[in-house]
Amino acid sequence: MRIVVLAGGIGGARFLRGLKRAAPDADITVIGNTGDDIHLFGLKVCPDLDTVMYTLGGGINEEQGWGRADETFHLKEELTAYGVGPDWFGLGDRDFATHIVRTQMLSAGYPLSAVTEALCDRWKPGVRLIPMSDDRIETHVAVTLPDSGATPDSGERKAIHFQEYWVRLRASVPAEAVVPVGAEQAKPAPGVLEAIAGADVVLFPPSNPVVSIGTILAVPGIREGIADAGVPVVGLSPIVGDAPVRGMADKVLAAVGVESTAAAVAEHYGSGLLDGWLVDTVDAGSVERVEAAGIRCRAVPLMMTDLDAAARMAREALTLAEEVRGA
Amino acid sequence: MRIVVLAGGIGGARFLRGLKRAAPDADITVIGNTGDDIHLFGLKVCPDLDTVMYTLGGGINEEQGWGRADETFHLKEELTAYGVGPDWFGLGDRDFATHIVRTQMLSAGYPLSAVTEALCDRWKPGVRLIPMSDDRIETHVAVTLPDSGATPDSGERKAIHFQEYWVRLRASVPAEAVVPVGAEQAKPAPGVLEAIAGADVVLFPPSNPVVSIGTILAVPGIREGIADAGVPVVGLSPIVGDAPVRGMADKVLAAVGVESTAAAVAEHYGSGLLDGWLVDTVDAGSVERVEAAGIRCRAVPLMMTDLDAAARMAREALTLAEEVRGA
Repeated sequence: MRIVVLAGGIGGARFLRGLKRAAPDADITVIGNTGDDIHLFGLKVCPDLDTVMYTLGGGINEEQGWGRADETFHLKEELTAYGVGPDWFGLGDRDFATHIVRTQMLSAGYPLSAVTEALCDRWKPGVRLIPMSDDRIETHVAVTLPDSGATPDSGERKAIHFQEYWVRLRASVPAEAVVPVGAEQAKPAPGVLEAIAGADVVLFPPSNPVVSIGTILAVPGIREGIADAGVPVVGLSPIVGDAPVRGMADKVLAAVGVESTAAAVAEHYGSGLLDGWLVDTVDAGSVERVEAAGIRCRAVPLMMTDLDAAARMAREALTLAEEVRGA
Repeated sequence: MRIVVLAGGIGGARFLRGLKRAAPDADITVIGNTGDDIHLFGLKVCPDLDTVMYTLGGGINEEQGWGRADETFHLKEELTAYGVGPDWFGLGDRDFATHIVRTQMLSAGYPLSAVTEALCDRWKPGVRLIPMSDDRIETHVAVTLPDSGATPDSGERKAIHFQEYWVRLRASVPAEAVVPVGAEQAKPAPGVLEAIAGADVVLFPPSNPVVSIGTILAVPGIREGIADAGVPVVGLSPIVGDAPVRGMADKVLAAVGVESTAAAVAEHYGSGLLDGWLVDTVDAGSVERVEAAGIRCRAVPLMMTDLDAAARMAREALTLAEEVRGA
């Protein structure tokens, strides 16, 4: 079975680990979000690709869900001692190596997809990981900064990098708009459209529907490719009981005018794209509303508390995909 | 008193620490060797500048004489795990920060001299540290690699980077030639010639006469500036009892046809440049030969076993400079 998964960071990575357990013989291609990539200290950092790679390759910091296990932060401490920032983005000493290798290869002319493949040669994630695009796409968030007087730009409306919104500001101000800058001119990376066209099923893990999966779908050709593939497309709600399972998905959902409910997210994807949708058992009441929108819906436990729970969720998604296919 | 010191790495840095103790009120300008700078992992590494900066700024690993105190090597371990080399150059996690900040500033268009000044803003070495040049100069060593069959180039005669000769090969094959590539086209960094012209005394610490002080003197204008300054120029022998005090200076002395003795090094500099020369007490027998070459010479203890010993050596050098001046 060939499975294509669109993945953001932590939620996508943990779901993928469950999927590998649930379907050990499947041929899994992961299309990774690169909209939250950022240049820091002259280095190219790809947080979502790395989270998938480290999680599936056994190098992740399990507790925090991102970054490396057994990590130290001496390099970052020294950068701060030099007065060189930003200091709000947590890069560890081991993690830095990935960004240095990536940056060197990019400087040598390799596209990000080839670089990602080379990095995965070491990590052996057991899936094929492809960035959504080799072209630069950067998710920006329009915000009005608090009029605190604390910084020169306080009170101003401005567009900031997604990481600045998410990590530095911790989504503490409303996102007025979310724009994947550069997406319109971007092309899917080599292998992305081929994987979609050859898939038996396409899955949307409980990743952020706006800044993770939404950004991937914004690359011209990807949304159309999935809609036209003629295979079951099944997603899992990242919203449980009207709140994000993790992260601050509600903040960016508001920016695109979508309420923070499992049903609203399904409607946001729409029946033109999505065939099946899993909501948590606490949201069983919304199954009817989702099905009324033309999307087959089941209520199952969606709390990814451990690998077993993630595997059960993956099995439910594959079961729903078979139901869709048989319908 | 304005003192100009030409410095390499460990020997120069330790002597400078003694000089600061010996002449606490002196205005000291250090012209640092950049011929052993190297690009590693896309980063600009300046080993000699950093050794001076860390030693005088209190950040040095005292035991090994280079690199940072309390250092870890996680980043380098990870680069090796990625199969990315070279693995023979010891860059620690804290040390990496210096190279990242330097590389970022160079990429932004700042010359190395301005970058060095910015790095020293943090370290406060108590001297003005200027690289010999803002232009790229790279010391290469011509060698015939052992015909071991172990590598594709074994048995070949080739020019390799100084660090490859010094650190990787540990000077295990004869140096057939030493060439500061790029020196002929280079200009002294801003402030170098001005400091020399305004100096009351110029000192050559017991640094390597070929690949450290020799490289600095190879930058057009520096040797002439020192010879024309009309102030005492005093050096300290890095050779004690026919062997280098540390390092492998004898290996590169052979490449320039100079025997490994305290007297031969003085003659190599020559009386056109050097006014005074300190040899170790074990080399007292060579004082006559050096003076016959027109260079005033004294035999004093030259083993820099600790800061006190380094300070005593610096005092002897300044005393000899006064003797030269009074002559």
